[in-house]
Amino acid sequence: MEKVKRILTGDRPTGKLHIGHYFGSLKKRVEMQDSGLYDPYILIADVQALTDNFNNPDKVRKNVREVAMDYLSVGIDPEKTTIYIQSMIPEVAELTVFYSNLVTIARLERNPTVKTEIAQKRDVFGESVTYGFLGYPVSQAADITCFEGELVPVGEDQLPLIEQCREIVRKFNSIYGDVLIEPEAVLSSAKRIKGLDGNEKMGKSLGNAIYLSDSEE
Amino acid sequence: MEKVKRILTGDRPTGKLHIGHYFGSLKKRVEMQDSGLYDPYILIADVQALTDNFNNPDKVRKNVREVAMDYLSVGIDPEKTTIYIQSMIPEVAELTVFYSNLVTIARLERNPTVKTEIAQKRDVFGESVTYGFLGYPVSQAADITCFEGELVPVGEDQLPLIEQCREIVRKFNSIYGDVLIEPEAVLSSAKRIKGLDGNEKMGKSLGNAIYLSDSEE
Repeated sequence: MEKVKRILTGDRPTGKLHIGHYFGSLKKRVEMQDSGLYDPYILIADVQALTDNFNNPDKVRKNVREVAMDYLSVGIDPEKTTIYIQSMIPEVAELTVFYSNLVTIARLERNPTVKTEIAQKRDVFGESVTYGFLGYPVSQAADITCFEGELVPVGEDQLPLIEQCREIVRKFNSIYGDVLIEPEAVLSSAKRIKGLDGNEKMGKSLGNAIYLSDSEE
Repeated sequence: MEKVKRILTGDRPTGKLHIGHYFGSLKKRVEMQDSGLYDPYILIADVQALTDNFNNPDKVRKNVREVAMDYLSVGIDPEKTTIYIQSMIPEVAELTVFYSNLVTIARLERNPTVKTEIAQKRDVFGESVTYGFLGYPVSQAADITCFEGELVPVGEDQLPLIEQCREIVRKFNSIYGDVLIEPEAVLSSAKRIKGLDGNEKMGKSLGNAIYLSDSEE
């Protein structure tokens, strides 16, 4: 029998989840959970959410609970899937600090995903990005490896983050011995759901979403 | 009666301490400890030592014990002074991660102490400094504030680190409420001890030091 592989996914608790999230990832997660072929871990990434919401901790705090409720409402079953809150695991912060020595500033600045996101967030960061935001791929590597994630479902635009994590793992293992598992990206073929206004993308910030917690009316 | 103030000092465990350290800082620490006017905390900064010794964790591990023994040998008394090892306090790593969002990359790159040290360490870092090394003033702010350090004895060249810490404290308090104590630098008028070879500075790397653990012969 093939060994059951650990999957690691998650969401940043910056708002309630909507049906775009459902068809984009949650539905697949429930199917994988129920297949019995995987050992799923889902991370509520509140520490990472603070990297571009550091001025608004209340928003993040409030949405940790919302996101957890949305998970339960779509059928994520805590008996089958481990749900964890990033800020409650100090080991993730410790690993982040240790991994920080294995990545150069230049390498982070070259990461295509990070580059794109910094360009999109000029309103938050102005002329200079924060130290924390530039380093979020490092803390993401800690999220994944801390729980020995083997498979990480991502969209194509997120592939450079997994590549960065794999580099950190190889570097760590070369210095400290063969300790960490090198995760593999699994490309999710998520359909993008159009917004209520016909916009190509349903999004909280676009005000065109149907939320999982909306009532029937 | 005036409130006893908490002093925070420390050393990076990258080698045994020598009499340069004794006359430069240890003697003063013992006097302050014995005066009863302060509440001294001494940090063995092994996590910070890894920022430029990440390729040699054994050196750091070994020297944690050496430095602790050197402290005891000069009269630092664990009944009066709290000695702590940075890596054993996960809260320091957690604070480091949270503070990372309150400092920009540009600000760290402008820090005169950091600039000087990066220039001195081209042999370690080559063309690009690591993410961890650029951010060590952030983890240093965590070291100080985690234990509510009020006074931090430093040399003049280290003043920009305390200023950076104070900025982080003010930013943190402005967002999260009045939680952290803003530490003050205390300039140490340390005499520099000449090396055995007549060199102006006694130093481990210069091979001209008398170690605290040397025998009488």
